[in-house]
Amino acid sequence: MPQLRLLPRRVWAALLSQLLRPPCASSPGAVHCHSQVAEAVLIPQLKPHQDKPNFIIKTPKGTRDLSPQQMVVREKILDLVVSCFKRHGAKGLDTPAFELKEVLTEKYGDDSGLIYDLKDQGGELLSLRYDLTVPFARYLAMNKLKKMKRYHVGKVWRRESPTVVQGRYREFCQCDFDIAGQFDPMIPDAECLKIMCEILSGLQLGDFLIKVNDRRIMDGMFAVCGVPESKFRAIGSSIDKLDKMSWKDVRHEMVTTKGLAPEVADHIGDYVQCHGGVTLVEQMFQDPRLSQNKQALEGLEDLKLLFEYLTLFGISEKISFDLSLARGLDYYTGVIYEAILLQSPAQAGEEPLSMGSVAAGGRYDGLVGMFDPKGHNVPCVGLSIGVERIFSIVEQRMKTSGESVRTTETQVFVATPQKNFLQERLKLIAELWDAGIKAEMLYKNNPKLLTQLHYCENTGIPLVVIIGEQELKEGVIKLRSVASREEVAIKRENLVAEIQKRLSEA
Amino acid sequence: MPQLRLLPRRVWAALLSQLLRPPCASSPGAVHCHSQVAEAVLIPQLKPHQDKPNFIIKTPKGTRDLSPQQMVVREKILDLVVSCFKRHGAKGLDTPAFELKEVLTEKYGDDSGLIYDLKDQGGELLSLRYDLTVPFARYLAMNKLKKMKRYHVGKVWRRESPTVVQGRYREFCQCDFDIAGQFDPMIPDAECLKIMCEILSGLQLGDFLIKVNDRRIMDGMFAVCGVPESKFRAIGSSIDKLDKMSWKDVRHEMVTTKGLAPEVADHIGDYVQCHGGVTLVEQMFQDPRLSQNKQALEGLEDLKLLFEYLTLFGISEKISFDLSLARGLDYYTGVIYEAILLQSPAQAGEEPLSMGSVAAGGRYDGLVGMFDPKGHNVPCVGLSIGVERIFSIVEQRMKTSGESVRTTETQVFVATPQKNFLQERLKLIAELWDAGIKAEMLYKNNPKLLTQLHYCENTGIPLVVIIGEQELKEGVIKLRSVASREEVAIKRENLVAEIQKRLSEA
Repeated sequence: MPQLRLLPRRVWAALLSQLLRPPCASSPGAVHCHSQVAEAVLIPQLKPHQDKPNFIIKTPKGTRDLSPQQMVVREKILDLVVSCFKRHGAKGLDTPAFELKEVLTEKYGDDSGLIYDLKDQGGELLSLRYDLTVPFARYLAMNKLKKMKRYHVGKVWRRESPTVVQGRYREFCQCDFDIAGQFDPMIPDAECLKIMCEILSGLQLGDFLIKVNDRRIMDGMFAVCGVPESKFRAIGSSIDKLDKMSWKDVRHEMVTTKGLAPEVADHIGDYVQCHGGVTLVEQMFQDPRLSQNKQALEGLEDLKLLFEYLTLFGISEKISFDLSLARGLDYYTGVIYEAILLQSPAQAGEEPLSMGSVAAGGRYDGLVGMFDPKGHNVPCVGLSIGVERIFSIVEQRMKTSGESVRTTETQVFVATPQKNFLQERLKLIAELWDAGIKAEMLYKNNPKLLTQLHYCENTGIPLVVIIGEQELKEGVIKLRSVASREEVAIKRENLVAEIQKRLSEA
Repeated sequence: MPQLRLLPRRVWAALLSQLLRPPCASSPGAVHCHSQVAEAVLIPQLKPHQDKPNFIIKTPKGTRDLSPQQMVVREKILDLVVSCFKRHGAKGLDTPAFELKEVLTEKYGDDSGLIYDLKDQGGELLSLRYDLTVPFARYLAMNKLKKMKRYHVGKVWRRESPTVVQGRYREFCQCDFDIAGQFDPMIPDAECLKIMCEILSGLQLGDFLIKVNDRRIMDGMFAVCGVPESKFRAIGSSIDKLDKMSWKDVRHEMVTTKGLAPEVADHIGDYVQCHGGVTLVEQMFQDPRLSQNKQALEGLEDLKLLFEYLTLFGISEKISFDLSLARGLDYYTGVIYEAILLQSPAQAGEEPLSMGSVAAGGRYDGLVGMFDPKGHNVPCVGLSIGVERIFSIVEQRMKTSGESVRTTETQVFVATPQKNFLQERLKLIAELWDAGIKAEMLYKNNPKLLTQLHYCENTGIPLVVIIGEQELKEGVIKLRSVASREEVAIKRENLVAEIQKRLSEA
């Protein structure tokens, strides 16, 4: 057979030159896949899973697919969160899904056992990221950045015992905002709380409260109560459980499991039941024991300043100074906070019920220095929005209210009542696509008109363009509103403009 | 005492090779490298990494952080890609980053060795996903879905030898669009090619060409050339290298390594050098050998129909039927395609240079059935946009042209020329945020006015509101345009409206 050259010579030469390129140069995103080596190796026959005994088709334990419905809800929530972060001047950043194992070690206290490690396949020891904060600190140190305001939306992985019913997954999305840099006290911290308020108000999840404390106040409190310094973290970790356990049980754990003297536990008990606004800060300044502790005083000074700024931001009534707030992570060094949703009381006078934490964060001034070759620190403060819990709440509400969402954005459907009209439909739909109109048609040569119209009703497409023999002859198209079932004939050349007009009015 | 070891020989070698890598290859700032693995280091307390002798601060091999600049470019490109997918009626879907290991086995032929496995920490055996296609097929089978048009943007992971300079990473982003379901032939397939054209045109990357072939034509060609059926995949895998190797070298591999008779190789050589438009399809129908093969004829019939639809879509001149296109993946069953960019000739008459594959895909009618308990198949066709390569091209162009991008969207900066005006600035900026205006200020009690104005110039903020003693007294705010340096006094109560007016005009 003769060599064929149907392409112009220059195109042909271009293709040839591609053949001469070095291996691996081909695909950065390696589109689907490139088989590299198949040296005389017989590729095993594709074997259906149903031939394998014991194979259950599922996602890994604690993970799930996100359906189109869920994706729509997510997209809306994430858009609101990200636009708030951008409103506050944050830049976007992304880091790899995994880090060198060593980057993650000794950052998460007792939770380190929940880190997913990758198999050693010859090379570096790697772990899936556990949060977005440690990678951010690693990024700052690695690039020697002294300040940065960034947001990061991404998945993190934790090997928790999955109690899926409660909406706790092993793979979940985090939305973080952080401010790194040496600034005047409490200005960035106040902005973080403002952001939490803007997002929680914007999402209309109902009433919420942000608990605030300071690691230095907590440590000072432990010190003045007589907790030995070696037990600070262990006792802090008990205190952290106060949102799930009663004080009695927490006290029992501190005394029995952690060996704290009962009277020391009772001293702590006096403090951790305190919560209130700026007046509680003032009160603690007067506290005969706490006011003797330098660390605690520093924390109180900062909280006082913080409340001043929160008042200027108009959000101080959303904030509660709460001595029971501990936060589990090792890396916090100053102010810490956690937002909870409050169920509206069923009856007046009833205590509002907490629906759990939906956002949290704090100051971590020492983390970047752990990665810096010379130990130089970059003070940081940030927050993380608990979007997974928020997704669950919104999905649950939609389920309860019977509200449904469209999972596509299609604006126009191209239909025909006639057989053998595929060619005209294809020409027409390409015209719409090229004009930027979101359009669909059925992938059938001869679909029934009723089937086509049902498709629009089922998927919420608002407009249908109908083309048939008659329309073709007259140079018009029928434009139909799915809701009103009204149809008008429009000149073919005006169709795109008319559709755009209708869509902009909708 | 923990066992301490000196660096093993191989680690030392790895260290040396690290040091010999060109700077800024993958990890900016990672010059102070040592080994990769700090063995037997057990430190109970938070310990700075700089105290660990072997610690290198870097991202894992073949991965990288994405800087704010890169994120802005990405966001724009992904927005264009996703809006095209939505224009064609696709729903969003997300799947976990990892799958049961078994889900991924026997899908990728020889590339299976590139799959990242997770460490067995007690539980299921897991692997990071290698593409978005297999998870999609698993999702369809698991949920017994008979049709779905979905898009998925997400990261995938492959343990390739990273040649970072060429932009090939072990973690990269894929953008997939697929149509699953039993439909009339070639209608969804044509839409996939239309989508590739819309995206590549929309991105303005320059001229491109989409090569099309069909697995059945390829297999038919092998059969009529005399390739034993057991060698189809191995020979296909050689053919797949024609974009990186010359025909001479591919022929050598087929004959020497894979044991093909030289005359059989030559027959193949006649075919794989053929490429052209629909006339080549017609010509192949007339080919005395190929027209004897049932499979090949089916493929040719489909391609003929495909070209008819592509003509109606107005894109047939972008498509080249190319008998050398093989595509490596095991799961393709029908039409396959791959888009390449053609560099515009530097001078008239010069040959255009190919810049490699930027999108690809094909039909895979058997993959879903592999997961279905009863083996029920769902025919699928889809495409994947090689966004990583596109990111690189766009970044490279911006670098060359010296174009810079803003990494924040801040619209207004709140400044003061006076000391002790923090409170007023905080009140003012909260007002702007609450009105949805993107605003920033410096986190300083008493910043200099010049510093504040410089910040705006450096970060591209267009407007400054200035508040001082005088303005406060008069109930006004100064609004300054950074570009023109013009300042006007505006009543405090009209400020938000005035800013919104200016921004909408900009």
